[in-house]
Amino acid sequence: MSETDYDLVVIGAGPAGLCAGMYAARAKMNVLVLEKAAPGGQIIITDWIENYPGFPDGISGFDLGDKMLNQAKNLGVNIKTAEVLSMDVSREKKILNLDDGSISTKTIIIATGASPRKLNIGEEKFIGKGVSFCATCDAPFFKGKTVVAVGGGDTAVQESMYLTKFAEKVYLVHRRGELRATKILRERAFKNDKIEFIWDSVVSAMDGFFNVENVKIKNVKSGEEKTIKADGCFVWIGIIPNTGFVGDSLELDDQGFIVTDHTMATSVPGIFAAGDVRTTPLRQVTTAVSDGSVAVISAEHFIENNP
Amino acid sequence: MSETDYDLVVIGAGPAGLCAGMYAARAKMNVLVLEKAAPGGQIIITDWIENYPGFPDGISGFDLGDKMLNQAKNLGVNIKTAEVLSMDVSREKKILNLDDGSISTKTIIIATGASPRKLNIGEEKFIGKGVSFCATCDAPFFKGKTVVAVGGGDTAVQESMYLTKFAEKVYLVHRRGELRATKILRERAFKNDKIEFIWDSVVSAMDGFFNVENVKIKNVKSGEEKTIKADGCFVWIGIIPNTGFVGDSLELDDQGFIVTDHTMATSVPGIFAAGDVRTTPLRQVTTAVSDGSVAVISAEHFIENNP
Repeated sequence: MSETDYDLVVIGAGPAGLCAGMYAARAKMNVLVLEKAAPGGQIIITDWIENYPGFPDGISGFDLGDKMLNQAKNLGVNIKTAEVLSMDVSREKKILNLDDGSISTKTIIIATGASPRKLNIGEEKFIGKGVSFCATCDAPFFKGKTVVAVGGGDTAVQESMYLTKFAEKVYLVHRRGELRATKILRERAFKNDKIEFIWDSVVSAMDGFFNVENVKIKNVKSGEEKTIKADGCFVWIGIIPNTGFVGDSLELDDQGFIVTDHTMATSVPGIFAAGDVRTTPLRQVTTAVSDGSVAVISAEHFIENNP
Repeated sequence: MSETDYDLVVIGAGPAGLCAGMYAARAKMNVLVLEKAAPGGQIIITDWIENYPGFPDGISGFDLGDKMLNQAKNLGVNIKTAEVLSMDVSREKKILNLDDGSISTKTIIIATGASPRKLNIGEEKFIGKGVSFCATCDAPFFKGKTVVAVGGGDTAVQESMYLTKFAEKVYLVHRRGELRATKILRERAFKNDKIEFIWDSVVSAMDGFFNVENVKIKNVKSGEEKTIKADGCFVWIGIIPNTGFVGDSLELDDQGFIVTDHTMATSVPGIFAAGDVRTTPLRQVTTAVSDGSVAVISAEHFIENNP
């Protein structure tokens, strides 16, 4: 392999990318972590995390992201603010085109995450104050409460049923007249007393003094609007992997997530993916840090075998 | 399914098992975590952990185990001290025979870990004080030092080469006259100036005031002994999964680790494995907590689909 700027470039500084940086730095790899926005990833907009082991009383997502960032820095990880615009991975020496120049590297770990699709009705300001995109993460905070859920696919239906373990009442709002979810899930949801379906409708607005208090629902056929008193709103209308720069260089699944094997190897030798951006059965901080560490070991082995 | 005592029994309270307990408790599963010894697993005998994200300056293994235990308790996880002697998983209702009675459960997560094979020459008292079983974990603590490594397989050779990134000198002690490791690894190790091979030999003793200072090497053919001044001793003579109670009920790999798919499902429906006990490319705290969380989601889905 001709000389490259780096052994490893990690794209993204969420939990997967920061953990990859830590493992690579400790392995004395010449590593660079790129982040286009603020290091920390999705978790820094997560109000409270109870299920990442090591914090007996839970920890705010912001604090956890900050701790991970400082840990990476303490271990000597070099983090650069830059966006990857495109990549050329057709040769052994891989080129990343950034918004401020080009760099070359032997291996790449893509850890750019995924973003939940938004309603775009101003719900951002209630994230962590009633608005959530993850029942596994946040449902336990809604014990005995009333919540609105949005969506009609497998995730929306499954997560709504999960929510009923905690919430007193779940209004499931779907823009069509029937669910997209598989039959068995539909049947179970229809049997669930705590779920009330609101068909042909969208959430058009929400308000509240500090937390969500009212959710406005609009019927897309009649145009009628009504307001539901609710303590929260779970949005499950899709999740979008951050893979714009990947182009068609890697195998993606039908939703655009990067396909890997259990060593985090993608379809291109020397390129690995970790965290929410890859096809995976679960997207949590736990799985992200695991992916990040496994991907580094795999990148090390790749370099050993392709000196 | 006929009535069972539990939705889920987790066997083992290391990072994988405790994380599984946390996820299950938050998902309102009726869960029990069994541990035969002290909760925390292997990490509680690990001196210092730098590569588990969330602790900027690192954390002692004991403290991390304690934090995870308290977090599990705070989330309502019931942890019972008991050893699983055997299991009957031939029916949907799974039976675990403990040292103090039997319990039944819909699903099981096996998270019993694995133990590095010991030299049995009293090295235990130097664990974390020079003796280590994991280069990825501990090699960076040996910058510029002299270390003895023990073993002759792929792991021993690969990890010894990794050690030379940090250590000034690595003596690789092997009880035979040639390495078991694959040819490509052998060739690379022979080219590495920092590795000196000591053939037909075993480590027979070690001493030091607080940390390891001297390692005694015995030639098994001649009986001759010599002492090497060394700051550490890495032992890679095998790792033994804790699967005695499993019998032949599950598919194991040729080293006895439990084979799973990427959802942590074993060969028996409703039984999952997580952490060091399963066949996996990496055994770290990161991978253990990930496995634990994924296994719970899979157990939940199993129960949903087998009501």
